[in-house]
Amino acid sequence: MERYDIAVIGTGPGGLEAAITGRARNKTVAVFGTPGGSAKVEKAHRVDNYLGIPAVTGSELASRFMDHAKESGAEFISEKVTLVYPMGEYFSMQTSAGEMYEAVTVILAAGMNAGKTYPGEEKFLGRGVSYCATCDAALYKGKTAAIVSFTPEEEGEADFMAEYADRVLYFPQYKEEVHVNDGIEVIRDVPVSVEGDIVAQTLVCEDDIYDVDGVFFLRPFVAPANLLPGLEADERHVKVNRSMETNIPGCFACGDITGTPYQFIKAAGEGNVAALSAVSYIDNKRREKSSNS
Amino acid sequence: MERYDIAVIGTGPGGLEAAITGRARNKTVAVFGTPGGSAKVEKAHRVDNYLGIPAVTGSELASRFMDHAKESGAEFISEKVTLVYPMGEYFSMQTSAGEMYEAVTVILAAGMNAGKTYPGEEKFLGRGVSYCATCDAALYKGKTAAIVSFTPEEEGEADFMAEYADRVLYFPQYKEEVHVNDGIEVIRDVPVSVEGDIVAQTLVCEDDIYDVDGVFFLRPFVAPANLLPGLEADERHVKVNRSMETNIPGCFACGDITGTPYQFIKAAGEGNVAALSAVSYIDNKRREKSSNS
Repeated sequence: MERYDIAVIGTGPGGLEAAITGRARNKTVAVFGTPGGSAKVEKAHRVDNYLGIPAVTGSELASRFMDHAKESGAEFISEKVTLVYPMGEYFSMQTSAGEMYEAVTVILAAGMNAGKTYPGEEKFLGRGVSYCATCDAALYKGKTAAIVSFTPEEEGEADFMAEYADRVLYFPQYKEEVHVNDGIEVIRDVPVSVEGDIVAQTLVCEDDIYDVDGVFFLRPFVAPANLLPGLEADERHVKVNRSMETNIPGCFACGDITGTPYQFIKAAGEGNVAALSAVSYIDNKRREKSSNS
Repeated sequence: MERYDIAVIGTGPGGLEAAITGRARNKTVAVFGTPGGSAKVEKAHRVDNYLGIPAVTGSELASRFMDHAKESGAEFISEKVTLVYPMGEYFSMQTSAGEMYEAVTVILAAGMNAGKTYPGEEKFLGRGVSYCATCDAALYKGKTAAIVSFTPEEEGEADFMAEYADRVLYFPQYKEEVHVNDGIEVIRDVPVSVEGDIVAQTLVCEDDIYDVDGVFFLRPFVAPANLLPGLEADERHVKVNRSMETNIPGCFACGDITGTPYQFIKAAGEGNVAALSAVSYIDNKRREKSSNS
């Protein structure tokens, strides 16, 4: 397996600037996330305060960002990272496609998680609560899985789960029409909490209570504290210093995920700093290694 | 006298982004510095890592920055700020043109002072050492002034000083040919220190020692600690937190002046944060005032 120098999680301005800066320093870079770039940039009506690009539409700005990042030679992987394991010398990443990737450093640039986490979600994480239906589907033969999904992009995960599970309850938390395979029960109800004894057993919603063997929360991004065990973060923000270092060596963060203000140029500036910090981390590690051998 | 909401000191990417962000929030903004923008941007051969503007020359980038900032409606003042006084409710600024300006907040964005300060410089500041020949010229009737200048742009200050002082010794610290009025003694010597008892009395140089009544150090920028009394800073960098606040309420900083990495997009991102922090400082102050009245 190729081990990248830098894995960037997120395709907003922070992540893309981190990618081009890493490439400019001759590092290999993998960028994980939606291939079109940040929906937040894309949907901005008009942006006036990105220095050097006056009065631009969000969609124009998003494509300029993406074109620039693609020209840099970063590799784009259209998969959502659902879990990051710190392995000491490197990080291992699991994606929603059920794939594993490795990188020496990780830059968290997945934006601000507007959604809150639910009571019981963290408690039962790994014991019936999961963020990757594809990864766990095989464990649900003859069982009941609830899938709470925040975007239509996740509908394929429900279909995949239905190939294994006995029952799939699909709870769309979006307004768009749902297109999932026959046999999947689409339920328009709003989750309140996950309950259970040792493992998750029920999904409590506003209208009803559902007996399940597992609950999958499929958000555009996983809350940072749940993405990387041990990361100093709350539900929404990762703690960083001015070098964009998190509390985990080799792990950096930039953009909205680090806190307000939620601004494109602020995110891009931080992406640059995060990438340069990652580059020195990598270079120092290699120097240490060669002086020890 | 008009009191601006925000005074930005410096015309690099940090300062200009701060200006457009302040204007986008409907604040009045005065930008002090060289009208052409940052020489550092202007002289960059090629910039590859400013997200959204790939493979651009420094001169192209500099003019895009400046055009954007000018469109924003910020007022540009082509004077160098030589001293900032915190007045409690606002800041008062003295410029090299001998003018005074006022602003509720100040954003320091004057770049990184590559030059060191000299032994004795800080000790005798205000007691024979000064950064503004124009401001102090009238005090030098019948006296001897040494002017240590780091750019040809300061030659006019020597000429002005010569209208008052008995003797003007001009020490150019640059390679370009010197064009100052007749009667000014141009000396190609390198300063080592300022010596004196209670006030500055001699300028010690590598080749010789000069008896003087005052020494003027004319750098493109004044070292931050000497620009604003009480500012937490060393010779080169101002200390800031993640909101770009300095230790002085109402005073913010961004760009190279806050530390490495010295990168344009990092400076611009910080300029955005500094301006938004200044905006909330102003709005809070006004709210307090109206609730007290």
